[in-house]
Amino acid sequence: MKIDAYSHILPAPYFARMRELADPAAFKRWLELPALHDLDERLRIMDEFGEGYQQILTLSSPPIELLAGPGESPALARLANDSMRELCEKHPDRFPAFVASLPMNDPDAALVELKFAIDELGARGVQVFTNVNGRPLDDPAFAAVFAEMAARDLPVWMHPARTPAFADYATENSSQFEIWWAFGWPYETSAAMARLVFSGLFERHPDLKVITHHMGAMIPYLEGRIGIGWGPQLGSRTSGAAYERLRNAPRRPLEHFRKFYADTSLSGSDIGTRCGLEFFGADHVVFGTDCPFDPEGGPLYIRETIRVLDALDIAEDARDRIYHGNIREMMRLSDG
Amino acid sequence: MKIDAYSHILPAPYFARMRELADPAAFKRWLELPALHDLDERLRIMDEFGEGYQQILTLSSPPIELLAGPGESPALARLANDSMRELCEKHPDRFPAFVASLPMNDPDAALVELKFAIDELGARGVQVFTNVNGRPLDDPAFAAVFAEMAARDLPVWMHPARTPAFADYATENSSQFEIWWAFGWPYETSAAMARLVFSGLFERHPDLKVITHHMGAMIPYLEGRIGIGWGPQLGSRTSGAAYERLRNAPRRPLEHFRKFYADTSLSGSDIGTRCGLEFFGADHVVFGTDCPFDPEGGPLYIRETIRVLDALDIAEDARDRIYHGNIREMMRLSDG
Repeated sequence: MKIDAYSHILPAPYFARMRELADPAAFKRWLELPALHDLDERLRIMDEFGEGYQQILTLSSPPIELLAGPGESPALARLANDSMRELCEKHPDRFPAFVASLPMNDPDAALVELKFAIDELGARGVQVFTNVNGRPLDDPAFAAVFAEMAARDLPVWMHPARTPAFADYATENSSQFEIWWAFGWPYETSAAMARLVFSGLFERHPDLKVITHHMGAMIPYLEGRIGIGWGPQLGSRTSGAAYERLRNAPRRPLEHFRKFYADTSLSGSDIGTRCGLEFFGADHVVFGTDCPFDPEGGPLYIRETIRVLDALDIAEDARDRIYHGNIREMMRLSDG
Repeated sequence: MKIDAYSHILPAPYFARMRELADPAAFKRWLELPALHDLDERLRIMDEFGEGYQQILTLSSPPIELLAGPGESPALARLANDSMRELCEKHPDRFPAFVASLPMNDPDAALVELKFAIDELGARGVQVFTNVNGRPLDDPAFAAVFAEMAARDLPVWMHPARTPAFADYATENSSQFEIWWAFGWPYETSAAMARLVFSGLFERHPDLKVITHHMGAMIPYLEGRIGIGWGPQLGSRTSGAAYERLRNAPRRPLEHFRKFYADTSLSGSDIGTRCGLEFFGADHVVFGTDCPFDPEGGPLYIRETIRVLDALDIAEDARDRIYHGNIREMMRLSDG
């Protein structure tokens, strides 16, 4: 049994609306991946991995709040969640559950949609992006979303997105070679994790479950930099009012970073997966593939990630937790 | 025998001039680390590790080109290199060689200083920062520096620095918690490596030796993202003229990334060091500590890095290459 906890999809009704809202030329990548929006192609790819392979559905980027202003985003989120629910209802053997999208540029509406999607549509988590059109996730406007997810004990998926400022920066320094995608996204994930940690998220909600994409991005490899380099020296490179703000930040940030969960979407890296697993531990790692954003348009990341996980020198029960046990427990899915 | 290939220092004459050139308040971190500019303190710390521990000296940041405009930077670089040479001459048993600094905001002068520092002062390499006041290292203005170092078969040390644009970005999104330092620097290193790779540096100079700080930053952990995710899909998220520029970029970038060398400055992370070593291989890893930028002001990173390297399950000759063999060969140092 393998439950892919981080795969991306664009349900047909949502994809049609998305194309009305923005220039399709800006979505070249999405258009060129049939498995994102063509359900037959998606199921064909999944067939390759047998009946034991299922996917938790998250809505593919770009974030809803990039496509629609606060007036329009609640309806767009609802369309996404309605059509995700439909996919799950039609194919419960393939898609055991979905993750809701929220109109984060309207925080009140986001909270309303969160409750509706979970209570009425059966969503078992929500996805947020690492910033909301440039507003960081530790902005007090978003505190209620995290508090509600903590109260419901359901996970938050966190996907990277460029801030507008980073996009400008990337245009100058990183655009030529898609560095913004390769390294900018993991940077954004890491920065968002740091902002959540240092703003005290896990002090307020010690049991909140946040699933970070790309196996925690920069965190495991740089654990020393965080643990010894950053924690005890926090503030040594800051002065003035900004320094004062650091006084209440956690002094042992590494223990907070370990509270995140991480998916295995490292595009088939054995060495990265081993490093990430050693950092987060088998209880905080979930099988995730980033399907279908690979050079074969879907199956390659699944195949490679399975190869990597099967090769790990770990106990079978740890492997089972990674493949399905952890996510099943977090989302309170039945044993199928 | 252990040669610390990446330690930082500010020789007293240079430090005095640096404080004249900029507001000392901006150098809080440097002022608070005596082992950076107080030679007695530096030697006292080194004593803890016995006679077998030596340091290759590189000039501590900020980059020369941030402190002095093109008219002044050549003299400042010369002051740095003269005073580095003096340290090595006085303490050859501690500091077997130094790495020259260059006035990179005056590329012609940088080439002159490179030749002088190596031919007349005995430098065995040069240090560059990941950008020159925002100009990326693949700017044609800097091509002659890399070509000259390739022709001389001596290594280039690459230290991260924020671009001005990133500093603006960081102010908005990352300043509060020194995220620019913890993750922005490794991002900058990774972005600079990518620009060098995709602009064909290693096609022009297949044997050029570039030593990246913090064990290759984001590269080893994200090797899958680079190898499968980026290489075959390069350009899938780019259109127009920028896409055309990608047509000549290397299609198997991962093999190019492996040509870099990496120091072990991961602040004492066992899991990161194992991951980095598996990526670069023992022939491309050098013992480096980031001394003295640790919470104890010098000895902690040395002690922790030695602990990590001693615990690696590798052949003794591989460990010896990492501790001193590789850097000795690259810098053509005597066997002591």
